[in-house]
Amino acid sequence: MAEKKTLMDYSGARDWVLAESGFDPELLGKCEAVMCQGNGYMGLRCATEERYLGEQRNLFVAGTFNKFDENEVTELPNAADVLAMTLRVNGARFDLTQGAADGYRRELNLRTGEVTRSVRWTSPKGDAAKFEFRRIVSLERLHVIAQQVTFTPETDVTLVVETGINGQMTNTGSQHFSEGEKRLYDGRVMQYTQTTTQSGIDFFFNTAVRFFDETGERPEKGFITMERRRIDMRYTLYVPAGKTLCFEKITTVHTSRDLDAAGISFKEMQKRTLAEAGQVQQMGYAALAEESAAAWARRVWDNVPVNVESSCETDALALRFAQYHLYVMTPAHDNRMNVGAKGLSGEAYKGHTFWDTEMFILPYFTFTDPAIAKKLEEYRYQSLPGAHKKAKGNHYKGAQFPWESAWLDDGEVTPVWGAADIITGLPTKIWSGFIEEHITADVVYGLWQYCTVTGDRKFMDDAGYELMMDTAIYWVSRMTEGADGKLHILDVVGPDEYKEHVDDNAFTNYMAHWN
Amino acid sequence: MAEKKTLMDYSGARDWVLAESGFDPELLGKCEAVMCQGNGYMGLRCATEERYLGEQRNLFVAGTFNKFDENEVTELPNAADVLAMTLRVNGARFDLTQGAADGYRRELNLRTGEVTRSVRWTSPKGDAAKFEFRRIVSLERLHVIAQQVTFTPETDVTLVVETGINGQMTNTGSQHFSEGEKRLYDGRVMQYTQTTTQSGIDFFFNTAVRFFDETGERPEKGFITMERRRIDMRYTLYVPAGKTLCFEKITTVHTSRDLDAAGISFKEMQKRTLAEAGQVQQMGYAALAEESAAAWARRVWDNVPVNVESSCETDALALRFAQYHLYVMTPAHDNRMNVGAKGLSGEAYKGHTFWDTEMFILPYFTFTDPAIAKKLEEYRYQSLPGAHKKAKGNHYKGAQFPWESAWLDDGEVTPVWGAADIITGLPTKIWSGFIEEHITADVVYGLWQYCTVTGDRKFMDDAGYELMMDTAIYWVSRMTEGADGKLHILDVVGPDEYKEHVDDNAFTNYMAHWN
Repeated sequence: MAEKKTLMDYSGARDWVLAESGFDPELLGKCEAVMCQGNGYMGLRCATEERYLGEQRNLFVAGTFNKFDENEVTELPNAADVLAMTLRVNGARFDLTQGAADGYRRELNLRTGEVTRSVRWTSPKGDAAKFEFRRIVSLERLHVIAQQVTFTPETDVTLVVETGINGQMTNTGSQHFSEGEKRLYDGRVMQYTQTTTQSGIDFFFNTAVRFFDETGERPEKGFITMERRRIDMRYTLYVPAGKTLCFEKITTVHTSRDLDAAGISFKEMQKRTLAEAGQVQQMGYAALAEESAAAWARRVWDNVPVNVESSCETDALALRFAQYHLYVMTPAHDNRMNVGAKGLSGEAYKGHTFWDTEMFILPYFTFTDPAIAKKLEEYRYQSLPGAHKKAKGNHYKGAQFPWESAWLDDGEVTPVWGAADIITGLPTKIWSGFIEEHITADVVYGLWQYCTVTGDRKFMDDAGYELMMDTAIYWVSRMTEGADGKLHILDVVGPDEYKEHVDDNAFTNYMAHWN
Repeated sequence: MAEKKTLMDYSGARDWVLAESGFDPELLGKCEAVMCQGNGYMGLRCATEERYLGEQRNLFVAGTFNKFDENEVTELPNAADVLAMTLRVNGARFDLTQGAADGYRRELNLRTGEVTRSVRWTSPKGDAAKFEFRRIVSLERLHVIAQQVTFTPETDVTLVVETGINGQMTNTGSQHFSEGEKRLYDGRVMQYTQTTTQSGIDFFFNTAVRFFDETGERPEKGFITMERRRIDMRYTLYVPAGKTLCFEKITTVHTSRDLDAAGISFKEMQKRTLAEAGQVQQMGYAALAEESAAAWARRVWDNVPVNVESSCETDALALRFAQYHLYVMTPAHDNRMNVGAKGLSGEAYKGHTFWDTEMFILPYFTFTDPAIAKKLEEYRYQSLPGAHKKAKGNHYKGAQFPWESAWLDDGEVTPVWGAADIITGLPTKIWSGFIEEHITADVVYGLWQYCTVTGDRKFMDDAGYELMMDTAIYWVSRMTEGADGKLHILDVVGPDEYKEHVDDNAFTNYMAHWN
């Protein structure tokens, strides 16, 4: 059932496995996005350990918005890369576009949240070896990324492993971080900090590599390099033919915007995160992966079991795929943030929240996991001041929600300019932030559904009715009386965004009337 | 005489040709730096048209320093890339690590300043074609970069050419530019602007591609794409077996810091640079290359002919190589800037001026091209206010020159932190900016040589003696009387930078005494 064009393979559907059956450097983006891992706190795009031209490496921490300069809008910054590893087998860099690759397969196991990738690679020099890569972003421990590599050469080889923390990453060229501090502890644990340039959020990364062979842990001395915005360790290991070398890289990611970082100093955060990293590095990959899989079972699969009766195995796979990504992208831990239109899987839409939350995301949680739905509603309620401001700025009353929403007090964050008009050669103006107004009613739609389904009267009393009233007031002030003596909503963008400046758009009018 | 390790080939020494005889993606940096082109106004690192992992693409305009944030020092920003081209032959991306490459050769002709690269490439799909790339940075027209590609397939193929202006480049992760405006004129000419974030310098790029076959210019309709920080045109061309398609990409680069841009508005610069680009694009590659070669002959080779009597051809080549790079890196057009320690060939040393100018660069110009030497001296004189400030900040008198120097009023720009100490795991402090003080006497050494060799009494009366006196005053204030009753210069870094905090360093003391 492999799709030739994308190399996706759904034959493991019964085992909840989504696979890529071959490697094509022209198709990197597909699995980077589809196999994205995360836990709502952070999202890790599924770039490969070895680097390729055209790759997109992304690590986002929810809610850490930053603005590059006055001409740009706030966005989720692309944090330091911790995944990349340069592996050299007898001097030849592991690179699937070189030499020969047999039996390549990459799998995302939706049940456990683990991504595995295996291949037998023969270097251009003729050395063959089996590689197996595993990784998780822990659903149990929100700050942990764990990787494991097993390497079995068919000839005696020297393997060089170079890996660390790379803060040279940008959002398509925009650098959101000032370079921070680089430290090596105990000749083994690398620490890197970076701070967002405008919002002033500190990021703390701690990582270390440990090596194992069949006799147990193999202590190795590495060589440290610190370059601009990066810190790396290089290990040189002799591995005899047929023997398996296993190594683990376990990384922690924290920020000063974390709820439990409030009031903690930078120095104290450095110390505390280093200690936490030491603890999880000691646990090791297998224990962390098991613990995370248990969290997936407990919080998702056993919590919302879905049985699909279908003759087609992929129907259930598709549904589980959606459930998986809902938990990867939703910041269930913190009501000061919401879901981005592209989740935490890539730079598109800048991590901003659109009406997509209320239409596509919230209903799932409202019906199955109302505690999370409530967090998403609390976010909207907390952003009322911004909605008041937007209404006022446009000379309306009440609350007008931003088309795109980021940190609570960011207000409207829709970019003003988009792609080129092919005819005129000029960038086109994005009107959504100005006049795609149905968002305000959409927010209420989600709220009302939450309230009627869950019966959470307390939330409605505390917050919900206020939000409903303020939006209703907005709609009344937004209407204009026409020559026909009727009220009209003029000059909007409806859900069909290809039609701008529409009068009395059906969806907008209907929703406004309902609101 | 090919050096196996670097693939460099000096067999063309008699013809002033420096060559690379094969392609190795692990050795990209070598020719990127060695075959760097420029004209003192700008420097273009010799990255290949097709992109590779590990490449370093750099375009610098002299004197356009910018500071990323308060923790970094000012540096020459890496401007938008205009060289890169994605070429696809029947869908296969031109990439020398794929398929088969025969007869690869890249040459820098020192006499003409032209870089050529040729190869017969067979794609993994089996389509073979001859590629020839040529490029210059015009020595005659300081704002012009010109490229030419000739393509001759052995089978009927569809060639897709995608190229434009890419402002996503950074200095190892630090982004020095705000995104500017993107425009397409006449369906053909791409314009991109970018502005440095702190120093506020506007950069203006204009570029266009033209196609030719044996019947003359071949008008082609391209498809425009504008992404974040980049603008590209994509052309799809059918090329029959055995026919040659030739295309040219001619680019202009201007900034608001250019001497002749003073008082010109942004809009006017957009208009003016577009017009200039149209003019040089009309001239075409061959005429521009010829004109530039003539400038090399007139300004360099005929101006300072050097005859080397040696049995080894490479002796003369080495000397000409040095002469070539002296003109590539020296901003002879503008006395507000000086020579960077790595010229304009890469990010290292950030474009900063060190004592290297007076020791290694200035003497050549003093003896052969005194008008240029004078410009470099004028730069030092104009930076006296910064030297006064540095002395005062350190509680000395007179003028203490910065160890690293950038824009005239930047003052000391030596970074404070460097690479890791392997033992402690901590970044090491760079003491040069604090106590590598011989630079102050070195500046005077260069000045005195200029004055005695050229007899330029006017410059000495106007500026030189003032500089000499102020530095002498500094040295006197810098000395401390010891218990032995003698004057000492304590706690310096001498030219041997591996020894920090030295008392009475021989070189420093001798030079200070002489000064």
